[in-house]
Amino acid sequence: MIVTDVANGQVLMLAYMNEESYKLTLKTRETWYWSRSRQELWHKGETSGHYQHVKKITADCDLDTLLIEVEQIGPACHTGAKSCFFNDILEVEGDKA
Amino acid sequence: MIVTDVANGQVLMLAYMNEESYKLTLKTRETWYWSRSRQELWHKGETSGHYQHVKKITADCDLDTLLIEVEQIGPACHTGAKSCFFNDILEVEGDKA
Repeated sequence: MIVTDVANGQVLMLAYMNEESYKLTLKTRETWYWSRSRQELWHKGETSGHYQHVKKITADCDLDTLLIEVEQIGPACHTGAKSCFFNDILEVEGDKA
Repeated sequence: MIVTDVANGQVLMLAYMNEESYKLTLKTRETWYWSRSRQELWHKGETSGHYQHVKKITADCDLDTLLIEVEQIGPACHTGAKSCFFNDILEVEGDKA
């Protein structure tokens, strides 16, 4: 599941859902994930207060990935960063094709 | 790997890379993925002409997912849609928290 900030489209994080977490997300309109490392349900924000209020869900062409647009309370990342994507790997400049 | 359009931040698709496809992506600055269904390298655009020119790559906090910003030639999706995410599942309106 790709999670973006509904306010500006910024990609916040990638996380996994199983059927139970998906149903809880639809029911509560807050995000629930399946933690593969801890092998348990994870209600995002439950310990940090950084809840994600679901505003829109869109599935991809083969219906195996969801794009979830949320109102993010506080930072999405456990590091305190707004988005989990902050490690620069490559930036290509001045060669617009 | 989450792929977005560098022009406007739109999420285009989710795809997988292995080490070889990652190295080819860095080398050619076009996207290469690992097709899990076909179990083969997939040079995006090679058959369709819809190449993705890589402009920026950012890794997430635990370094297991990449956000790849591309200049997308034509549609990203094999259906002809610009983005693979076009199946509406849920839209929450009028309850801004």
